[in-house]
Amino acid sequence: MPKKSYPLGKVYGLLEPGPVVLLTTADGGRMNVMTMSWHAMLEFEPPLLSCVVSNRNYSFDLLMATRECVINIPTAEIAEQVVQCGNVSGATVDKFLQCGLTPVAAKMVGAPLIAECYASLECRVVDISRVKKYGQFVLEVVKAWRDPAVAAPRTLHHLGYGKFMVAGDIIQLKSTMR
Amino acid sequence: MPKKSYPLGKVYGLLEPGPVVLLTTADGGRMNVMTMSWHAMLEFEPPLLSCVVSNRNYSFDLLMATRECVINIPTAEIAEQVVQCGNVSGATVDKFLQCGLTPVAAKMVGAPLIAECYASLECRVVDISRVKKYGQFVLEVVKAWRDPAVAAPRTLHHLGYGKFMVAGDIIQLKSTMR
Repeated sequence: MPKKSYPLGKVYGLLEPGPVVLLTTADGGRMNVMTMSWHAMLEFEPPLLSCVVSNRNYSFDLLMATRECVINIPTAEIAEQVVQCGNVSGATVDKFLQCGLTPVAAKMVGAPLIAECYASLECRVVDISRVKKYGQFVLEVVKAWRDPAVAAPRTLHHLGYGKFMVAGDIIQLKSTMR
Repeated sequence: MPKKSYPLGKVYGLLEPGPVVLLTTADGGRMNVMTMSWHAMLEFEPPLLSCVVSNRNYSFDLLMATRECVINIPTAEIAEQVVQCGNVSGATVDKFLQCGLTPVAAKMVGAPLIAECYASLECRVVDISRVKKYGQFVLEVVKAWRDPAVAAPRTLHHLGYGKFMVAGDIIQLKSTMR
């Protein structure tokens, strides 16, 4: 796998632009993957983020049971697989097999990295106090991976009902903002 | 102003792709605007979102005092102004004047819309229980505005230190996901 270890202090730059992500979970023999767009940073370092996983998702049970997951960031090259992941339930099928995604063992958590994604963030659940009210989990990224060969990832940004904006040009302005 | 009223149920499609936004606040004679990227949807309708406003920002005090704000979505045409907004403090200067942004009266809240932004969302703070721990506010969008002439907004997506990804091509895949 071409992904290398990536500094935790730079993780915000991967998630802040708002890409669709693939969240993986695993508990013993069960393993699942779901698409997610409702995530945002909460703190730079250690990187904390909030995300919504509805209790209608099969991943909810795995996440609550293990308190671990991996956030994988896909690009336009696998757009079809990403959409397929969002349209079937892991309760009835093996979504990795069904969607043609390859699970790879993580280092710090039980949930798998996805080989086809250019970046993967191993996470632990650190706060479930808003799960009941909003389905909102707080995650801490404990280990990050990124393929250094991908300079400008063509991330996917969901606009609704299968419509996605694909990451475009990069511009650099003079700024002191982290 | 070319912005028209926009359905609340479609607001998620504006915020889900992760654009940098300009958050405006106003309390009597004081008015401010700040850049923000740490936001995410929590519910489709009524649209709820979470966002982080640090207590080191001047906007924090205005937001806590009034419990109202407007989330304005800028595009690449005003990238310079967006970055300028993030690099000065409203405690010392009038950022609207300084950054060349035009405040326009909102309908439901005291904070202003920004004329130069293609979309504006009038919001009320509905939950401050995680402000102390994470600086995280929960907002309800009570009125939305969007310029119908802008078909594919060139939104800005922050990558860190003044580097932005500009929204690229739009692709449509077959999907049942909202």
